[in-house]
Amino acid sequence: MPELRKDPIVNRWVVFSAERAERPTHYRISHSPAPSDGALYCPFCPEHENETPPEVFALPGGRAATADWQLRVIPNRFPALGVEGELQRSGDGLYDRLSGIGAHEVIIEHPSHSATLTTLSHGEIERVLYACRERILDLKRDVRFRSIVVFKNWGAAAGATISHSHSQLIALPVVPKTIAEELEGTREHHARTERCLFCDILHQELHDRSRLIWENSQFVVLAPYAPRFPFETWILPRAHRSHFEEVGEPELLPCAEALSQALLRLSRALDQPPYNLVLHSAPFGEPRPHHYHWHIEIIPKLGHIAGFEWGSGFFINPTLPEAAARFLRELDL
Amino acid sequence: MPELRKDPIVNRWVVFSAERAERPTHYRISHSPAPSDGALYCPFCPEHENETPPEVFALPGGRAATADWQLRVIPNRFPALGVEGELQRSGDGLYDRLSGIGAHEVIIEHPSHSATLTTLSHGEIERVLYACRERILDLKRDVRFRSIVVFKNWGAAAGATISHSHSQLIALPVVPKTIAEELEGTREHHARTERCLFCDILHQELHDRSRLIWENSQFVVLAPYAPRFPFETWILPRAHRSHFEEVGEPELLPCAEALSQALLRLSRALDQPPYNLVLHSAPFGEPRPHHYHWHIEIIPKLGHIAGFEWGSGFFINPTLPEAAARFLRELDL
Repeated sequence: MPELRKDPIVNRWVVFSAERAERPTHYRISHSPAPSDGALYCPFCPEHENETPPEVFALPGGRAATADWQLRVIPNRFPALGVEGELQRSGDGLYDRLSGIGAHEVIIEHPSHSATLTTLSHGEIERVLYACRERILDLKRDVRFRSIVVFKNWGAAAGATISHSHSQLIALPVVPKTIAEELEGTREHHARTERCLFCDILHQELHDRSRLIWENSQFVVLAPYAPRFPFETWILPRAHRSHFEEVGEPELLPCAEALSQALLRLSRALDQPPYNLVLHSAPFGEPRPHHYHWHIEIIPKLGHIAGFEWGSGFFINPTLPEAAARFLRELDL
Repeated sequence: MPELRKDPIVNRWVVFSAERAERPTHYRISHSPAPSDGALYCPFCPEHENETPPEVFALPGGRAATADWQLRVIPNRFPALGVEGELQRSGDGLYDRLSGIGAHEVIIEHPSHSATLTTLSHGEIERVLYACRERILDLKRDVRFRSIVVFKNWGAAAGATISHSHSQLIALPVVPKTIAEELEGTREHHARTERCLFCDILHQELHDRSRLIWENSQFVVLAPYAPRFPFETWILPRAHRSHFEEVGEPELLPCAEALSQALLRLSRALDQPPYNLVLHSAPFGEPRPHHYHWHIEIIPKLGHIAGFEWGSGFFINPTLPEAAARFLRELDL
């Protein structure tokens, strides 16, 4: 059974899924194989549906996949957390731990093996966003869960192990540290000003325009003021809303359009870089936080950036966001 | 001129050293070359001293290097921050920034090109620790600096670009986020209990022993309770002291011995993994924090672990620290 443990110094929860390998020989460095390509057997391709656990959601229809499915959501075959059981809290002297309860699902974004989120049509990306929203609304009813992380690793260097385009969703009994920090920072700003910090950032960025990459009537794509990594890109909704899953259906297509623009521009500028994408949304089960504002963050993985930053939390970025934004903004797509 | 900018949401300072490349083509992924090996020209080898800036410290002697130097400390030729100029703070609407003032030095740990910190004698490692202490004591007199990060990237995958064994030191006008978080967490514990959290952790770990890797009379090597990464290893001094630079000379050799044991065991278990090492020590210029306890953290870089963790602060670790500690503890060196 996996477990969650909290670092008592910085209050960070970590999942230990120790069913996975633990012998040191497992970690010896070898040239990690690239994700399987089209020539190899892919469990996410049509007609291989029996190779994965049965879907919990599919389009069209919302339930079991039809022969001509457009999107499938399945439980992860190697979940980081287990969905069965009771949430048990226990102490261990100074330390705190929780049973490793959670859900871990995979969103197969398209039947085609060679499709990528970057090249899907706006309508197809809208389906992915719709599926995320439906899965969050469903999982949210489980009172054991406090938050859901939706993320996408694209490319082997970003952690993808299957090349067929997919996203992942992990429902957690705790709040991830970054979200907790963002809640804290925005709470302080709200207490002082009675305004949402993200709304204030949007206001300043739309006036200043030097870090703006793209915008439509409902979403803004921008380079943040102090990004840790070159070409880090955020997608912010203009409408203040703490939870992604409360987005109305009319907003999904404009959001898909913004996501498509962000990914296309990064892909063109950086020659299809590996990337990590994370949806930031407020946790459940507490009074709706007026100070939080859901958004999407995309980090292209450009070389071996991760050095002492892991240990110190101190980042050196060789690219000013104004330079990255100008380049992305001025691309001729 | 480099600059520091603060992310207003999570209060994290980031250095922008924009003299470095900023065209996107610079980032296109290629097979990154391994660090130069012995066959190539190495600027850190003896008789190439003129290829580097003049040393700010050397052993033996403490000043200019003699022909038979044992260790040299030089300014980084491509510093992330500049040492000249006045520290200027400015606002930019919502945002805060600082001129990029700081020092960035390189500690060449040994004259031999093939030596590594893992294979140096205890006396040689003691020299490295002594040099760190001397450089911190010197830089600390500069009132512009608030903290110093000493770190080592070993292996190309950990960010090293020169293979000749070296560490780095960056003096900063701000406090790195991880240290700030540790200060906050330990301050809260101290306010509640009037005890140091690290001392409490030591007490519990020395009693429990399941995460203990090695110990001598003054230092303890252990796997932390909730590590983010497999085989993450900490070196804690038994004596409570907030600042590394206040360590007495008699403690340096036992510290070197502990560091040697930690690195040797990781090297043996994981077949010379790339790693990042970071010295965690309290910042300067505020009342001596009774709640902080300096220590060293080592993170082996095992494959492409960094995925969505960057975006969410949420970590999945496949290895329980008890399993890692047992393996490292029981190794027959």
